[in-house]
Amino acid sequence: MEVKSKVWLERKGKLFLGMGRVMLLKTIRETGSINKAAGKIGMSYRHAWSQISFAEKNLGKPLFVRNKGGSGGGGTTLTSYANELLKKFEKLQREEEAFVNKRFKEIF
Amino acid sequence: MEVKSKVWLERKGKLFLGMGRVMLLKTIRETGSINKAAGKIGMSYRHAWSQISFAEKNLGKPLFVRNKGGSGGGGTTLTSYANELLKKFEKLQREEEAFVNKRFKEIF
Repeated sequence: MEVKSKVWLERKGKLFLGMGRVMLLKTIRETGSINKAAGKIGMSYRHAWSQISFAEKNLGKPLFVRNKGGSGGGGTTLTSYANELLKKFEKLQREEEAFVNKRFKEIF
Repeated sequence: MEVKSKVWLERKGKLFLGMGRVMLLKTIRETGSINKAAGKIGMSYRHAWSQISFAEKNLGKPLFVRNKGGSGGGGTTLTSYANELLKKFEKLQREEEAFVNKRFKEIF
């Protein structure tokens, strides 16, 4: 018997940050591109875009910045707000998982 | 911004106890009938039966007993194992929720 759990954030009754979007945002941070991130995760660009765009609208704050031009052809970076949000969310998630696993062993 | 979370139990990689089945088992306990419980939840008898029957097979332990005959026409009661399982699961769930809410306020 194993215990499983998940944590997500909602605003106005709608999901804006859960495991899927966290993974997407982190992969955008790694690759510097929504397109590359979507490809790596196996998601269409359109779907990736709509996920983040929905989260941004729901939050009312930008999560990423498109850098135009330059020799590298620009790229996408996360805003410091998005980085902070990811950091906090992952901290909460790690703590929750550790708590649930510990209490599961004790109770069951 | 609100935090949401859920906890469930798996065995052999498959869900056997989550919020839905907990509610179903508790309603069977209250009503003494799978049929009445299904109706109260708004689920077909067939679906309710398959949910519990799957959980029983996965666990390898009976969760309810059908009492035959008598003037009241029998009825369905939960096994003491099922009662114990519900008690433990709800304890874990309450503690997890309290933990997540507390840490969410502190971190965010």
